[in-house]
Amino acid sequence: MAIERFEPRLGAGPHMSGIVVHNDTIYLAGQVARGVEPDIRKQTAAILANIDRQLAVVGSCKSKLLSTNIWITDFANFAAMNEVWNAWIDPDNMPVRACVQSPLAAPEYLIEIMITAAR
Amino acid sequence: MAIERFEPRLGAGPHMSGIVVHNDTIYLAGQVARGVEPDIRKQTAAILANIDRQLAVVGSCKSKLLSTNIWITDFANFAAMNEVWNAWIDPDNMPVRACVQSPLAAPEYLIEIMITAAR
Amino acid sequence: MAIERFEPRLGAGPHMSGIVVHNDTIYLAGQVARGVEPDIRKQTAAILANIDRQLAVVGSCKSKLLSTNIWITDFANFAAMNEVWNAWIDPDNMPVRACVQSPLAAPEYLIEIMITAAR
Repeated sequence: MAIERFEPRLGAGPHMSGIVVHNDTIYLAGQVARGVEPDIRKQTAAILANIDRQLAVVGSCKSKLLSTNIWITDFANFAAMNEVWNAWIDPDNMPVRACVQSPLAAPEYLIEIMITAAR
Repeated sequence: MAIERFEPRLGAGPHMSGIVVHNDTIYLAGQVARGVEPDIRKQTAAILANIDRQLAVVGSCKSKLLSTNIWITDFANFAAMNEVWNAWIDPDNMPVRACVQSPLAAPEYLIEIMITAAR
Repeated sequence: MAIERFEPRLGAGPHMSGIVVHNDTIYLAGQVARGVEPDIRKQTAAILANIDRQLAVVGSCKSKLLSTNIWITDFANFAAMNEVWNAWIDPDNMPVRACVQSPLAAPEYLIEIMITAAR
């Protein structure tokens, strides 16, 4: 049993780790697009770029995604979110995913993404 | 580290894998009851039957469920959902579970279930 | 592959296990504060105390938390919940976390917490 922990998520309070690695499994904190204008495409792209950076910290990458939870504040944004998501994922190595609608921690956040990946 | 991936979930767009297996852990995509009338018992039963089929693809079964997330669109359906759930689960090998209320990707979906299982 | 299962969560119906242990990973059922008055600080504290007790059953503790999902029914309670959370977590060993807003199984529940930990 080996656990490694990494800095709190960017822009978040001191409530959590940003990345936790346990054996071969990587857990990332739920990501929101802090400081990004409330445009679903821009916020989704900003979060996915941050996920790329965070996975690189622990020697992983988007081709090793296992599972994804997405919360969006309005399903009216679903198709546009999926466009950005589809352009980003590795089509040969897609994670499982669930997406539901929920209000998020601040009204300017339109989407939050939480992922689990393999090391 | 070994990852295996399986076809996108039935009836879903090309956004995700249906099943991802990592070492001894199986992740299934969030399941909705596409094409099933908006009856909570029928939708729950359809999803659980599909989970049985998906687990069989990777040599697992409902007795190896680890964790379950359930989203329902209205807690008025909670008791009826639980009736179907309780009749389905292996009483000697129940997973942990959380169930909350959230709007889902299409108005005809009353329930979405996402599970993690052991191989 | 080894799975161990423990009693249904306290106060819940016969729908789930309270704790499932798979190899080195511990899954706890989503916790609500049954019978606690609808005060976010009291409910959060009650749930976290119960998580301490449940982790002890399987030889773990809050310093081994990996990932946390929190659902609150109103983000007006977010700051007060975080105060209790921050006083409880081991600052050197924080889990990843996502918190979104969702209605819960009964109107008196203000918060539900689901965690994954290492053995």
